[in-house]
Amino acid sequence: MPADEPKSSRRLERMEDLVSLCARRGFVFPSSEIYGGISGFWDYGPLGVELKNNLKALWWQRVVRARDDVEGLDSTIIAHPRTWEASGHVEHFSDPMVDCRACKKRFRADQLDEAGPCSARQGSSEHDLTEPRRFNLMLTTRIGASEDAAGLAYLRAETCQPIFNDFKRVREVARQAIPFGIAQIGKAFRNEINPRNFTFRSREFEQAELEYFCHPSEREKWFAHWRDERLRFHRDLGFDESCLRTRPHAPDELAHYCKAALDIEFLFPFGWQEIEGIHDRGDWDLTRHGEYSGKDLGVTDPETKERFVPMVIETSVGIDRTCLALLVHAYEVQPLPDGETRTVLHLHPAVAPIKVAVLPLSKKLGEPARELAGDLRRGMSVFYDDAGNIGRRYRRQDEAGTPFCVTYDFESPGDGRVTVRERDSMKQERIAVGDVSAHLRERVEFGA
Amino acid sequence: MPADEPKSSRRLERMEDLVSLCARRGFVFPSSEIYGGISGFWDYGPLGVELKNNLKALWWQRVVRARDDVEGLDSTIIAHPRTWEASGHVEHFSDPMVDCRACKKRFRADQLDEAGPCSARQGSSEHDLTEPRRFNLMLTTRIGASEDAAGLAYLRAETCQPIFNDFKRVREVARQAIPFGIAQIGKAFRNEINPRNFTFRSREFEQAELEYFCHPSEREKWFAHWRDERLRFHRDLGFDESCLRTRPHAPDELAHYCKAALDIEFLFPFGWQEIEGIHDRGDWDLTRHGEYSGKDLGVTDPETKERFVPMVIETSVGIDRTCLALLVHAYEVQPLPDGETRTVLHLHPAVAPIKVAVLPLSKKLGEPARELAGDLRRGMSVFYDDAGNIGRRYRRQDEAGTPFCVTYDFESPGDGRVTVRERDSMKQERIAVGDVSAHLRERVEFGA
Repeated sequence: MPADEPKSSRRLERMEDLVSLCARRGFVFPSSEIYGGISGFWDYGPLGVELKNNLKALWWQRVVRARDDVEGLDSTIIAHPRTWEASGHVEHFSDPMVDCRACKKRFRADQLDEAGPCSARQGSSEHDLTEPRRFNLMLTTRIGASEDAAGLAYLRAETCQPIFNDFKRVREVARQAIPFGIAQIGKAFRNEINPRNFTFRSREFEQAELEYFCHPSEREKWFAHWRDERLRFHRDLGFDESCLRTRPHAPDELAHYCKAALDIEFLFPFGWQEIEGIHDRGDWDLTRHGEYSGKDLGVTDPETKERFVPMVIETSVGIDRTCLALLVHAYEVQPLPDGETRTVLHLHPAVAPIKVAVLPLSKKLGEPARELAGDLRRGMSVFYDDAGNIGRRYRRQDEAGTPFCVTYDFESPGDGRVTVRERDSMKQERIAVGDVSAHLRERVEFGA
Repeated sequence: MPADEPKSSRRLERMEDLVSLCARRGFVFPSSEIYGGISGFWDYGPLGVELKNNLKALWWQRVVRARDDVEGLDSTIIAHPRTWEASGHVEHFSDPMVDCRACKKRFRADQLDEAGPCSARQGSSEHDLTEPRRFNLMLTTRIGASEDAAGLAYLRAETCQPIFNDFKRVREVARQAIPFGIAQIGKAFRNEINPRNFTFRSREFEQAELEYFCHPSEREKWFAHWRDERLRFHRDLGFDESCLRTRPHAPDELAHYCKAALDIEFLFPFGWQEIEGIHDRGDWDLTRHGEYSGKDLGVTDPETKERFVPMVIETSVGIDRTCLALLVHAYEVQPLPDGETRTVLHLHPAVAPIKVAVLPLSKKLGEPARELAGDLRRGMSVFYDDAGNIGRRYRRQDEAGTPFCVTYDFESPGDGRVTVRERDSMKQERIAVGDVSAHLRERVEFGA
């Protein structure tokens, strides 16, 4: 479990410190870095991919596998283009943009305070702006054999629309009755005008979405259920109450299809920002896809025989945003009793990229230490490190967020015990080699 | 373990039978089906996504987590476009195409035997073909704020190029020395002219690739190592020797950058086809990316101080193709002693979407049966089904590939035992409720 010390004492002040750690330790760094990067695209390195995969697996376990009433899905990124006409994205998924006639730069009309000075008008900060025009955020491509006649297609702007496409098929094959849900995790793409705040606003990102279909009379009940469930998830990840809040949308903020919406926000160094949205989408999506496809997407109540289009409660969490929140929340430069400091990531053990580092005190102890590492590897992610002094090796693991270090020392061959050191408290205890696996497994679990 | 009966007796003859089962049971079905589908795109339903995720997790465990010398990566689908110039894809990644001047259809020049008759020339099958022209298979898009100046970008055509982009960064952050590898799993896209054979040749697909970097003197050793490792993986998945073979490429078949290559092929109903490739790519990729980026991607031997560009051994497996091979291999319509038949998928328990179905003999036994299902759910994928006669419920699980059914019957409350039925042998044994979890866990494991 993360330490209980007051979290405010370790709040990250400058994003640059985290960006630097992420690059240095291989959590996240710019895509195509050797070519100067590509704005809005980020790669996850060896530690980052484990963090992200752990988070996705916990979501999947909690939302899909642990329940009888949710089915999984993995749909393609490119769907039939009618999908995005039905959803309203072709018509409405756009930002208001203005161009500067002088410097030729483009800005979001609602973010002109971020525009900075005009580079073509020296000594003046005033741009010569056009009237706002709409700019669609979907990425497009062309599919098909003939270059001339190839069909326009879109990279999905959200993972939920293919869920509506597949609603009827999934309901039938899974023999589910209302209420039930369909969930998927996957990439989505938006041509953000101004990608910023590290991975927070990027052009290629990963979502985990659940669409839960229910009877109109039960929508409020399920909205409350999923709000509570998702909050429980974020709390279980270890987020402190002081940096997590919910913000219901005011009626004039709601998307046109939305009956009610609530953001789960996290306190980033750049302010409170949404990491997840809970939405009552009503029957908008199924009705529209029904109209555009000519298929009847309604259902029949088996008892009353009433025919109706189900209402949709959606939970939509940004995987990259939650990873970023986890890292922000975990980061601490901690003063130590000896006057030194350590950089430590207080990540929940269940999301930590490496669960345990096995550290022989000397390379001479390599054989039994490697054997222990090999045993542990069957059940968890293990790092083996036999180089450098033990203090430095602990520091490297602190910075990677590794919750446990197991040190194999010169007494271990004799007494069959190793030292297990816990990251947050730095407390050490001697444990029999045969008990290490069970000891750790208990401590890296995530609640059901 | 899959049954030992001769596999030839259950070889799938007609792909249509599997396609039909996959749609009916929700393994795989056309993307955007309600809009008539989109050629070359397939969605994985509730059972399919579990099968695919299981396969990916086994690969990741075997190739990345179980080893000290392989690092994971998760790079973006869209990279800097120079990536694809350096790799040679912009110039060379194309098929020779011919157009029919009469019916306006386009065909691959090397697959004219599949062209069929000309629809514009009744009574004749002869097309009026143009000379072959090259047609690039990469999907393109445009990124950036200004519509006019937006930059051309490519959806990755393979997952390996971003690995070369990130080689230097990953080697440094992971403090790895040669030899070591970088692995990733992810989507790739190709504008196939003629998608076909179900999910075998599609336009959006998933790859799991390892690039292993070694000294020039060790390339043959590592090629042999990875060939053997990957073959062991496929054998461990349960593939019978009679439907698995290796095929070394003849010198005139090799890609221009390739020094040696070997396909691992599976016997599909449409013939022997590649599911994985093992390639000695030499220093082609790192040399090219070094030239195009202006970065030095060489390494120094810590002992001899020799400076060299590492050689690359690649293993590249199609996740969708392997899923398809697993389904083809597992499929059987089996005659039963009572004269009936059952459709059964003999999937390896480690990849089976559902590990165990919990089936109370009567809804009256629901409470303790649900409790058992809840316990088992913490460690594996569980399906609960209390509807219909028990024989029909077994059949449904056979068809889904579920290796174990646990029946809670009227004696269970008294003797604390349940019946565990194994899918392939259909043998049943009575087991104490408290032992079921351990009993099953042992049997659904995948070797290290």
